[in-house]
Amino acid sequence: MIKIKPQNPKGVRDYLPEENAKREYIISVIKKHFELYGFASIYNPAFERLETLQGKYGEEGDKLLFKILNSGEFLTDTAMSSIRSGDIHYGELVREISSKGLRYDHTVPLARFVSQHQNNLAFPFKRYVIGPVWRADRPQKGRYQEFFQCDADIVGSKGLVSDVEMITLIENVFKELNLSVEIRINNRKIYNGICHLCQIAETDRLSISTILDKWDKIGEEMVREELGKLMGMEKTTQLLEILSISSLEAFSQIDFADNKDLIEGFQELTYIFKYASSSILKFDLRLLRGLDYYTGTVLEMVSKEMAYGSIGGGGRYDNLTEIFGLKDTSGIGISFGLDRVYDVMQELKRFPEDMAQQKILILNLAEEATSYYFSLLNELRQRGKIVDLYPTVSKMDKQLAYASKSGYSKAILIGPDELSNQTILLKDLNTRQQLTTNKDELFASI
Amino acid sequence: MIKIKPQNPKGVRDYLPEENAKREYIISVIKKHFELYGFASIYNPAFERLETLQGKYGEEGDKLLFKILNSGEFLTDTAMSSIRSGDIHYGELVREISSKGLRYDHTVPLARFVSQHQNNLAFPFKRYVIGPVWRADRPQKGRYQEFFQCDADIVGSKGLVSDVEMITLIENVFKELNLSVEIRINNRKIYNGICHLCQIAETDRLSISTILDKWDKIGEEMVREELGKLMGMEKTTQLLEILSISSLEAFSQIDFADNKDLIEGFQELTYIFKYASSSILKFDLRLLRGLDYYTGTVLEMVSKEMAYGSIGGGGRYDNLTEIFGLKDTSGIGISFGLDRVYDVMQELKRFPEDMAQQKILILNLAEEATSYYFSLLNELRQRGKIVDLYPTVSKMDKQLAYASKSGYSKAILIGPDELSNQTILLKDLNTRQQLTTNKDELFASI
Repeated sequence: MIKIKPQNPKGVRDYLPEENAKREYIISVIKKHFELYGFASIYNPAFERLETLQGKYGEEGDKLLFKILNSGEFLTDTAMSSIRSGDIHYGELVREISSKGLRYDHTVPLARFVSQHQNNLAFPFKRYVIGPVWRADRPQKGRYQEFFQCDADIVGSKGLVSDVEMITLIENVFKELNLSVEIRINNRKIYNGICHLCQIAETDRLSISTILDKWDKIGEEMVREELGKLMGMEKTTQLLEILSISSLEAFSQIDFADNKDLIEGFQELTYIFKYASSSILKFDLRLLRGLDYYTGTVLEMVSKEMAYGSIGGGGRYDNLTEIFGLKDTSGIGISFGLDRVYDVMQELKRFPEDMAQQKILILNLAEEATSYYFSLLNELRQRGKIVDLYPTVSKMDKQLAYASKSGYSKAILIGPDELSNQTILLKDLNTRQQLTTNKDELFASI
Repeated sequence: MIKIKPQNPKGVRDYLPEENAKREYIISVIKKHFELYGFASIYNPAFERLETLQGKYGEEGDKLLFKILNSGEFLTDTAMSSIRSGDIHYGELVREISSKGLRYDHTVPLARFVSQHQNNLAFPFKRYVIGPVWRADRPQKGRYQEFFQCDADIVGSKGLVSDVEMITLIENVFKELNLSVEIRINNRKIYNGICHLCQIAETDRLSISTILDKWDKIGEEMVREELGKLMGMEKTTQLLEILSISSLEAFSQIDFADNKDLIEGFQELTYIFKYASSSILKFDLRLLRGLDYYTGTVLEMVSKEMAYGSIGGGGRYDNLTEIFGLKDTSGIGISFGLDRVYDVMQELKRFPEDMAQQKILILNLAEEATSYYFSLLNELRQRGKIVDLYPTVSKMDKQLAYASKSGYSKAILIGPDELSNQTILLKDLNTRQQLTTNKDELFASI
């Protein structure tokens, strides 16, 4: 028999029971609050048509799409002979052999979804999705090709109520997860307004935002240098001076004149600061978030207790569905990065002790007790207990070792003696204490 | 702007809120019982290395694997020039450009997982996984390229206790789902024993089992004809006569002589019939299940209330991990086909009325009430209520229409009058009745 090395692909991970229980705990908390806020769960397939995905995440994003090979004899004779004659280049070849890709995030599939099903949805449409997304990043420590995003979006309303709701939602999730988090917030209209104020050409704005997004990584001096190269020192100094403003009040001192973007962006942020608990909000003019599709509020969630970068983010988008033919459908979305929240919780030891329900193992000590074991299993499970029977009659030590290693907290021992006496030996696997009891007492006690 | 048609790829589906809530209801029931039975949740990535997947599902299965294009410039110069010179055939080209595939089921990834992580797991290892698998079948009605399987497996013990546990688990799941189901059961050792009895060559057994698996589709006459062509009418008649035996008791009348397979298979089935509730079991000698890896118990779940084919299945496998270097690790697994269970529940109208919690919509009727709305939202959610605020102040009719269309059962109306009177108008959206109340009464009543 040919042996194959058991190995998952580079860049993706398995989660073992203990780790996965923690991930599912985080998911359950996020899911609970998504539902309390009236978001409905939907499901989108793992892959989309490539034309749905391409061109939505910038040039870099397009490269990171996982493409799926067409099934069957995917190379047409025409394509094959073009390849042979050397007439086909890389991009064309990809188009010939692949027409689907794994989703890169949950937002573009959502835009496709609401456009496709618009006649069967009520707007504003509130949905959540919790699941994996895939990016063909070079595998490296802390960066994976498959990771979970927990997204909630409200599509089909410009109302700032939704922006406030998103913030209180984030606040409630992290309160329950026992993490202290700050929400950095800005508004893309303000960025546009500031660029206008500094007379920065529209064509430069994307490059500038890319430089500003690297602020935490490269530091202010490098940002200044790179901006200077791009648009000269005068504009750079003016821009950085404005961006250094760190409160909404100080910002209001600027003369907005008739700068419509500044006026609107400021009004929107003011509304949000008024109704959301401002203790969690941090006005951050440097926060832009790379994705092209944001048009209003942008936000990022950052731990206040450890330096880690953002553990989630979101923002408002006015034109995301337009490319799919659905106009005037503003939306706002937030996304919790499950793996990043996990890392912070793990590092800060915030997983509750009693996260998992206690498990009981019935030791399998006597063949003749089999019927009794099965009926006991059934009765305990009907009482909502997690209980299990060791699958073969074998040595007690072996079974107890298994119970401890597998996280059982109690063992039930019924051998020939207990069977004939109608007693049960109940062993606490933590304290190692054991007591003799019977079925009725057992049901009453646990 | 270029317009893109919003469309999911052929063969995969979106699930809208109502449909998805039903799917999640089924998942929650299955998950609950998996956990009561002591199975732990793990997570495996969506894709595996191709060498992990290939050769495990037969020739047909290999064709149905979704292959992922390598990232970057996936065609090496060597490969490109081989293609151009015509020196490369289809299979070689695939190997050059793809090294990963989407999982085809949860069982092979499990075998890879337990082999890879054997030192960090306690055996018998009990795990469950609920998630999508992908098969590049030709899209057609009722057959999809992405579907959910809900799997539980016990790996690392030959104990028949596990076989019984799997059956009571299936029984409990369908009891809670309010479906009447029959578990067809057989044992691969019995099939081997019968083949031996009928002097059927080992090399023919796979082809024969493939024909027998089609019984429900093509009927007995066609089965007889196809078998006859393969091995002559004499053996066919003898085989079909044995296979027509429909009870374990009648089967025991056969002279097993020293046919080890028959003896063992019969003993195993007898044990299972003794300890599992036999009212749900149906002894079915014709049940084989195509997959090569089964070696003992095989079973299928079938609705007793409608003709639909199997809605789940499973079996015992003795050598699944051997190819990954982990020997002597027998296991048993079952899998519920979520989409198929869904279809049966939907057809038979078995989804409970009160599956979803009731939702409340606070109408947004006055700008000056905004703070009050937000505090009410917060207080209701703290009491575990699903509640929502319409995101913009707009016409009451529009908001009420939205509430009905989105499945809210109650609306809270607070306009300028109610705000100044400190009252609340509570409207039942089903009966259309409304009553005037206040905050304390509201909290007490809902």
